Amino acid sequence: MSATPTSREQRILEIIDTARSKPRRFRDNQVTLAHGAGGKATRTLIEGLLVPAFSPPDGGTLRALADAGSIAVGGTRLAMTTDSFVVKPLRFPGGSIGELAVNGTVNDLAVSGARPLALSVSLILEEGLESEVLRAEVEAIAQAARAAGVEIVAGDTKVVERGAADGMYICTSGIGALDVRAALAPDSLKPADQVLVSGPVGEHGTAIMLARDQFDLDAEVESDTCSLWPAVDALLDAAGEELHCIRDATRGGAASVLNELARASRVSITVREAAVPISPVVHAAAELLGIDPMYLANEGRLIACVAPQAAARALEALRSVPGCERSAAIGEVRREPPGMVLVETSFGGRRVMDELVGDPLPRIC
Amino acid sequence: MSATPTSREQRILEIIDTARSKPRRFRDNQVTLAHGAGGKATRTLIEGLLVPAFSPPDGGTLRALADAGSIAVGGTRLAMTTDSFVVKPLRFPGGSIGELAVNGTVNDLAVSGARPLALSVSLILEEGLESEVLRAEVEAIAQAARAAGVEIVAGDTKVVERGAADGMYICTSGIGALDVRAALAPDSLKPADQVLVSGPVGEHGTAIMLARDQFDLDAEVESDTCSLWPAVDALLDAAGEELHCIRDATRGGAASVLNELARASRVSITVREAAVPISPVVHAAAELLGIDPMYLANEGRLIACVAPQAAARALEALRSVPGCERSAAIGEVRREPPGMVLVETSFGGRRVMDELVGDPLPRIC
Repeated sequence: MSATPTSREQRILEIIDTARSKPRRFRDNQVTLAHGAGGKATRTLIEGLLVPAFSPPDGGTLRALADAGSIAVGGTRLAMTTDSFVVKPLRFPGGSIGELAVNGTVNDLAVSGARPLALSVSLILEEGLESEVLRAEVEAIAQAARAAGVEIVAGDTKVVERGAADGMYICTSGIGALDVRAALAPDSLKPADQVLVSGPVGEHGTAIMLARDQFDLDAEVESDTCSLWPAVDALLDAAGEELHCIRDATRGGAASVLNELARASRVSITVREAAVPISPVVHAAAELLGIDPMYLANEGRLIACVAPQAAARALEALRSVPGCERSAAIGEVRREPPGMVLVETSFGGRRVMDELVGDPLPRIC
Repeated sequence: MSATPTSREQRILEIIDTARSKPRRFRDNQVTLAHGAGGKATRTLIEGLLVPAFSPPDGGTLRALADAGSIAVGGTRLAMTTDSFVVKPLRFPGGSIGELAVNGTVNDLAVSGARPLALSVSLILEEGLESEVLRAEVEAIAQAARAAGVEIVAGDTKVVERGAADGMYICTSGIGALDVRAALAPDSLKPADQVLVSGPVGEHGTAIMLARDQFDLDAEVESDTCSLWPAVDALLDAAGEELHCIRDATRGGAASVLNELARASRVSITVREAAVPISPVVHAAAELLGIDPMYLANEGRLIACVAPQAAARALEALRSVPGCERSAAIGEVRREPPGMVLVETSFGGRRVMDELVGDPLPRIC
């Protein structure tokens, strides 16, 4: 496609747009792995079944596209979030299920503009799990919580028979105090907003693939799992209300987040492929597997959309945060075509970067 | 035993007491079903591994024996709690996993003296789960939340491969506002306190056993699953600060709760066996299985310890709550022997009602 779509391209985009704006309906007969992948099927399950069932008649606070719900307590606005972790294997280069379980929930709070305060941890253990494995994850949870500055205030443990789980699953929930500097919403993107990413994409997904020995690659890559609150804190300081939205690009990768935001704000997002930071190992692994790194999971990378006048100082602030030195501006928000994410390739072409369909890599987190 | 222990009995009690007051150490090589049963092994796991790892150096708010942690936000004190649900089968007379997941977490807040405000729901689904099964549980969750007056503000869904879970597991977390009338703590029991129970014990456990066709019994019993907030609210109104502690008697049953409270407050609790309300079906089922109904799980029964001068009006208030008409005063707190629960049998004898050991009925909730 050229910069100005032809009338045929325009027609195709219109058809896609019409199909997308219909309310999602959950019609599958069975749950499939795709429903847990963070892409199209997950969203159909959420928007077609869960949100309609759980939303109170008057609307309420459950928002399909946000990482955390909000609730007012006394004079404070709180964010609350939850996440289950079923990653396989339990340990991988750069992290483990316990560390992931803390950082994942901390990050859902952080990108909602909430300073993480407290976590709960619920363990589902398989009968026969080695105590040393459990002990290591308990320690990983404790360490990650200390590093993120959150307190673990409640816990639960259940045990299921041998074969009724895969070692251990962890569910963490978190509450945080919404930061007064934050005015973040997925539907607040404006044309000309700049899109920032806080570092190289796809490292968590690649680390998991390598840990599973799914393909022969003589290289090492570590999961990017970390707390994103310091990065969010720096962004809020630098850009305040000019920061329109932050998301962490977990399941479904950066591509899925960008698609959700474009849809929610009824705008287009253009990504400059050459500007996206990707480490050589991730690039090679993605090529071998035939996956676009933009669809690979991250556990310590955020996407921020910021008004153009604040973009340079937001990027500078982000790069000053340890671990975010390779942050980059990777694209911008445009008006047309609404709801679409487009990629400007290194060769000067354009293509649609659609939602993730199916599940190329189950149990990534 | 007679009312005054002989010197031999006294010696036995001392030995038990000494053994119990040692700090628990988690030394097992593997996780067993008993670690999830709510009895001795669960407590060893919690006190020997989880609490030491998760407690901050300065003490913090994680309390091994409480149903919820607390955290101060602005001027409000909040309670936070979490629970995973792995009950088998998913549906049983009187309820289902979805209803249990809401009520269980609502009740952990309620018995901590916190008015339930918001819940998060995290689903772990097995690939291949029938959508109708999922839909029914989503509806059960929504209905139970409406009935309990709590809002679902956050959610998550993960899918694991066929065989890596048993249909579905649900983790719910909740936050509530600590009621100003409440001054509840497991270590605040005083000699002469009266012990109340909010209805017949063991119905949930029996309903699950019957639903599993574990034995041939031509009778019906329904799970007692319900929100306990109305009962707690009535008790707080009637007894205020004279209400010393409330607990819900879930896994491990009433016996486990009484043991925990006796230990935490360093008091003795005497239960009058004949005063404990038990329905005939539960009685018969327990006899057949050789289990004391006091160890059977409940999902809608609380144990309250209240100062003697407030006991009569607390009981009256409790009985006025729908579903709690059969509430009863079942025993009292005494000074000696500390940490022990004793039963006065219908035949005038006494015996020790020890902690639950092992797991007579896995996956009860």
